[in-house]
Amino acid sequence: MLDDKISAAESVDIGYLDRGTFFGDGVYEVVRTAGGRIFGLEYRMQRFAHSLAELRINGIDIEEIDSRVKTAYKKSSLADAVIYWHITRGCGPRSHTWNDSIRPRFYLQITPLKDASQKKQHGVDVMSLPDIRWKRCDIKSLNLLPNVLAVQAAKEKNCEEPILVDENGCITEGASAAFFAVINGVLRTAPLTTNVLPSITRCFVLHIAEHIGIEVDQTAVSLEEAYNADELMISASTRDVLPVVKFDDKIIAAGRPGEYTMKIMAEFEKFINGKTTLPWPKLVFRNKNEFNVPQALIK
Amino acid sequence: MLDDKISAAESVDIGYLDRGTFFGDGVYEVVRTAGGRIFGLEYRMQRFAHSLAELRINGIDIEEIDSRVKTAYKKSSLADAVIYWHITRGCGPRSHTWNDSIRPRFYLQITPLKDASQKKQHGVDVMSLPDIRWKRCDIKSLNLLPNVLAVQAAKEKNCEEPILVDENGCITEGASAAFFAVINGVLRTAPLTTNVLPSITRCFVLHIAEHIGIEVDQTAVSLEEAYNADELMISASTRDVLPVVKFDDKIIAAGRPGEYTMKIMAEFEKFINGKTTLPWPKLVFRNKNEFNVPQALIK
Repeated sequence: MLDDKISAAESVDIGYLDRGTFFGDGVYEVVRTAGGRIFGLEYRMQRFAHSLAELRINGIDIEEIDSRVKTAYKKSSLADAVIYWHITRGCGPRSHTWNDSIRPRFYLQITPLKDASQKKQHGVDVMSLPDIRWKRCDIKSLNLLPNVLAVQAAKEKNCEEPILVDENGCITEGASAAFFAVINGVLRTAPLTTNVLPSITRCFVLHIAEHIGIEVDQTAVSLEEAYNADELMISASTRDVLPVVKFDDKIIAAGRPGEYTMKIMAEFEKFINGKTTLPWPKLVFRNKNEFNVPQALIK
Repeated sequence: MLDDKISAAESVDIGYLDRGTFFGDGVYEVVRTAGGRIFGLEYRMQRFAHSLAELRINGIDIEEIDSRVKTAYKKSSLADAVIYWHITRGCGPRSHTWNDSIRPRFYLQITPLKDASQKKQHGVDVMSLPDIRWKRCDIKSLNLLPNVLAVQAAKEKNCEEPILVDENGCITEGASAAFFAVINGVLRTAPLTTNVLPSITRCFVLHIAEHIGIEVDQTAVSLEEAYNADELMISASTRDVLPVVKFDDKIIAAGRPGEYTMKIMAEFEKFINGKTTLPWPKLVFRNKNEFNVPQALIK
């Protein structure tokens, strides 16, 4: 029955039996383009392969996915675009378990990139919310309901991003962005555990900081530390690096983009535009010795 | 792009833009029928309304859904069936946030109920796994990836059900079933918090126990306590109440369905068959004073 129409099972489109809908059983990626070039696609492909492997969605040819992304983008006429794609484990009668014969399904969309220049120039407001997500946020899965609820709550408070705080009062990351604080000249962000997405923009931000002489400390920032930080910033594939000028009711960095933030943004811009003289970073999925769930769950 | 076919956005079926797939943004219910009668539909409708309200999926006429379920079931020729339905928030361009104008989508399927009589007679094996789910398991949402992974892992060990253990070593519930222990003549199960589904079979089991003189204690059972329990059982809409005879490598109740378990099963059977002389229970969503996440997250 679809809405109020009853049909025989055989006549219903197989798409209605997608495990993506029944269970959120799939993984996705997002990449931006700049002036007709896809930015850092190889990093997304690495992470996509990681997500697929962790969920045991097997038999995906990553090179073929890479080629599909490039082919689809060539067909679009968008210089600055957002490419989103996902793979679900496949379709079949609803059952938690799956058989290896199931055939994964691929979906990709290309949309114009929204201009973030005002946000980059003036900074954004963010708000804190409890992190109620599952314990495998290193997998970029389609189970995004806690993220959806948090982003909606932030939007309703006119905030750019919800910043998630764990049960110990420490910030893990934003619901759709990485999060950084500058405290006494040190760039701080939570370590990569299974509670945090191995963000690609995070990888670039830390890499840039190290190359321009900013000390990096991958130790989670408490909410109190964040309120009193010298600078805060967030980063996301579709928004690059954004200065944070207000966190809950606390004004950050006198309400203006901070010095360290602007330096990092400028270097990141050079990567985006293909004008950097820095080497490119290596993507890390998890910091060593930072397994925060039983090994059995990590695989 | 669907698999390897590129299309203009306008020509793609709207179903590919379902927030159910992008985010798992929807809720579901399952009910069994017995001899042509739907068992306890009104309880599912109450819980469905709860799930919808918690996710702010608005504008659903529960009476209309109730009527659709009954209409669809009448059209089927199955005496013993499983009716599954879900509602997603609706379709639209992928964006975490939603507008109130979005139109929810309804999907329902009816399949034959699998015979569980052998399992009821001989009991089942279960295994423990860490509970890595999000902190709003009281909502019956489509974010089921941790459940899928756990059930698949259990199947591969020839286990009927994965029993989830939280970070304190306490059992919350099964990934697709409620969980009970009989310890010193007392029926124990975890209290209803936001970490546990307000299971309808759980509600019946506790109600039955109280009416046939078994003491009930809604205090979570530790893994150690469960290993040493006199009896264990699980319950689920599609399997009723099942005795557990093995938990990990521990034989339970000498490997046979226990006395208390069989009494509860017999009374539950009477409810299923419409032959009970007991009053019907009242569905509870959360035990008082058992809010385990900040109030702000509960609504």
